[in-house]
Amino acid sequence: MKIVIAPDSFKGSLTALEASQAIDRGVKKVLPAAETVLVPVADGGEGTMDSLVAATNGRKVEVTVKGPLLDSVQAAYGILGDQETCVIEMASASGLCLVESDKLNPLIATTYGTGELIQKALNDGCRKFILGIGGSATNDGGVGMLQALGMKLLDLEGKSVGFGGAELSRIVEINTQDFDSRIAECEFIIASDVQNPLVGPDGASSVFGPQKGATPVMVDLLDKALSIWADLVETKTGIRLHNKAGAGAAGGIGGAFQAFFSAETKRGVDIVIEYTKLGEKLHGAHCVFTGEGQIDYQTASGKTPMGVAEEAKKQGIPVFVLAGSIGTGIDVLYNHGITSIHSLVNAPMPLQEAMERGAEFLEVSAEQVMRTFLASFKK
Amino acid sequence: MKIVIAPDSFKGSLTALEASQAIDRGVKKVLPAAETVLVPVADGGEGTMDSLVAATNGRKVEVTVKGPLLDSVQAAYGILGDQETCVIEMASASGLCLVESDKLNPLIATTYGTGELIQKALNDGCRKFILGIGGSATNDGGVGMLQALGMKLLDLEGKSVGFGGAELSRIVEINTQDFDSRIAECEFIIASDVQNPLVGPDGASSVFGPQKGATPVMVDLLDKALSIWADLVETKTGIRLHNKAGAGAAGGIGGAFQAFFSAETKRGVDIVIEYTKLGEKLHGAHCVFTGEGQIDYQTASGKTPMGVAEEAKKQGIPVFVLAGSIGTGIDVLYNHGITSIHSLVNAPMPLQEAMERGAEFLEVSAEQVMRTFLASFKK
Repeated sequence: MKIVIAPDSFKGSLTALEASQAIDRGVKKVLPAAETVLVPVADGGEGTMDSLVAATNGRKVEVTVKGPLLDSVQAAYGILGDQETCVIEMASASGLCLVESDKLNPLIATTYGTGELIQKALNDGCRKFILGIGGSATNDGGVGMLQALGMKLLDLEGKSVGFGGAELSRIVEINTQDFDSRIAECEFIIASDVQNPLVGPDGASSVFGPQKGATPVMVDLLDKALSIWADLVETKTGIRLHNKAGAGAAGGIGGAFQAFFSAETKRGVDIVIEYTKLGEKLHGAHCVFTGEGQIDYQTASGKTPMGVAEEAKKQGIPVFVLAGSIGTGIDVLYNHGITSIHSLVNAPMPLQEAMERGAEFLEVSAEQVMRTFLASFKK
Repeated sequence: MKIVIAPDSFKGSLTALEASQAIDRGVKKVLPAAETVLVPVADGGEGTMDSLVAATNGRKVEVTVKGPLLDSVQAAYGILGDQETCVIEMASASGLCLVESDKLNPLIATTYGTGELIQKALNDGCRKFILGIGGSATNDGGVGMLQALGMKLLDLEGKSVGFGGAELSRIVEINTQDFDSRIAECEFIIASDVQNPLVGPDGASSVFGPQKGATPVMVDLLDKALSIWADLVETKTGIRLHNKAGAGAAGGIGGAFQAFFSAETKRGVDIVIEYTKLGEKLHGAHCVFTGEGQIDYQTASGKTPMGVAEEAKKQGIPVFVLAGSIGTGIDVLYNHGITSIHSLVNAPMPLQEAMERGAEFLEVSAEQVMRTFLASFKK
């Protein structure tokens, strides 16, 4: 019997790889001879790089870059097995996770470090990029990234402006003369579900600014700055980012990709499924295990178990979801290929204990689901 | 598809009947046309009367009798559909549950009320009795029951002794002249797993006395009293209860049945399975749902899910257990016919919430197990 094991990470408890190994142990307890295929997956957010690197036998490159507040941070990017595709999680260089909450400040936070990661990967020979842009601490329209890649953004006195969202309002000229020419040879795939425009009430500053530390006053200032930036970009490139869907993703870096890069946006989980070759690995499988920490009706909108289920549905393979916490409205998930959803938690207990014992619970519940699934074969 | 639903009660949350109805709702959500057979079961303890009455379309008779401390208590017995078999839970007349913990006192606690229940059922024409003897507050060797049924237990002055375990040491003569003659026409089935002898270190007083409020001094006194009683019984009947297996059950009432009644002891769950005709109801079933609040390795020793599983195993039917709390060592259960064990709790939460939402969780998890079980049929 062939069984594919493709869980997401269980945040705060297990990485996607650890989760797949725990499920594998549970399955093997019932079917020691089963052919199991472990495919740790992710939805474009945290863990995406690791799962793609693992799935393609790629490698991880650790580097030091400028963090959101210009301090040095240890970041990483992945080079896939094909040796030319680079996977970057923007958050590793420019993420909320790198800034203490009381220091969050999108007026000064920059995407410079993300640009540095791209540049280093270019030096490694990469010409294809997969960029997960979730969890950024920035609202600088991607200007920091452009600066790192050699673009000159000049003020009235012809001097380069500084870093962060507030500086955008001082830009009067975009000089692309020294912009890294290798970018023109590159293809960028942006992992993002965000459709917001760059400016206005649905724009980056209004919608995502507050969670990055922006006060209402700062939101206004940032929105105006992005608008001034968008005017200049339109003059320079003819591309109008102001209301463009997706331009507001990750503090406006989405717009920078639309204007200055050959980039397309895809749903994170679809990218991961494509690069992990999940479809191929599913061939001939009798069932699939997936799962994540929390599952509910929102899972229908492109979270990992949904992507896995949609892929498995094409091949008519049952999909069992193991979840640490099962929310409301899960009935909507069955139409997307999910067969059933089982809880990990084997008794009333505090969240802390459930997290600490995640691997144990995942193993046991995978075993039980397997036993139930097999019962009808035995009859 | 035929599905048998045979859970125990979920203590503090759902009766066995409520539990079976919740599981039924979950199953019907997946298979609206399924033929479901609801068989609420019990293991001889609390709920045994209700499940047998329900399964046989019998009736429940509420009566007022003397409680363990001679106060009036509202008790009940069941008359099964055959109109001649009476089901009594000793605890309803003489149980721990009827006495506040600080008032527990086996020196004075009596089984008189249990005798009253038997007598009232005799008046109703019952000649067959099923007695669940778990949870008693007494250590009187069943003497109170015998007194209620007309047996005279006399002291040195030829006066009837009083009630409770301490009084046994004052008995010098057993006079059965007025002992209810109808008892001779009756057959008693005692639902008990207890094998303890009447006296000694493994006897009723030493092993069960403390949980009934006996101090070490009281335990000695009670053990001596039971020994004196056993001497008299031996003289009177030739039956030596002192070391007889099961004589120590429920404060020694087990011995009273062995000496003065036509009684046999059976495992509670086996009685329930026999009278609910579970075996017949299982014919042609595709699977069985059972469950209870807590399941662990101890479940192997005659708890409800085990009895149900053993019965289903004879017919090769898969058994799915739904449990509120899954303990350790459950692997031993698979050999007894249990196919898989699934948790009700769908997220980390306090016990209180799990209990309050028991029906909801039971319905959802039954639905999920059903979906997983059916997945292989669909392939």
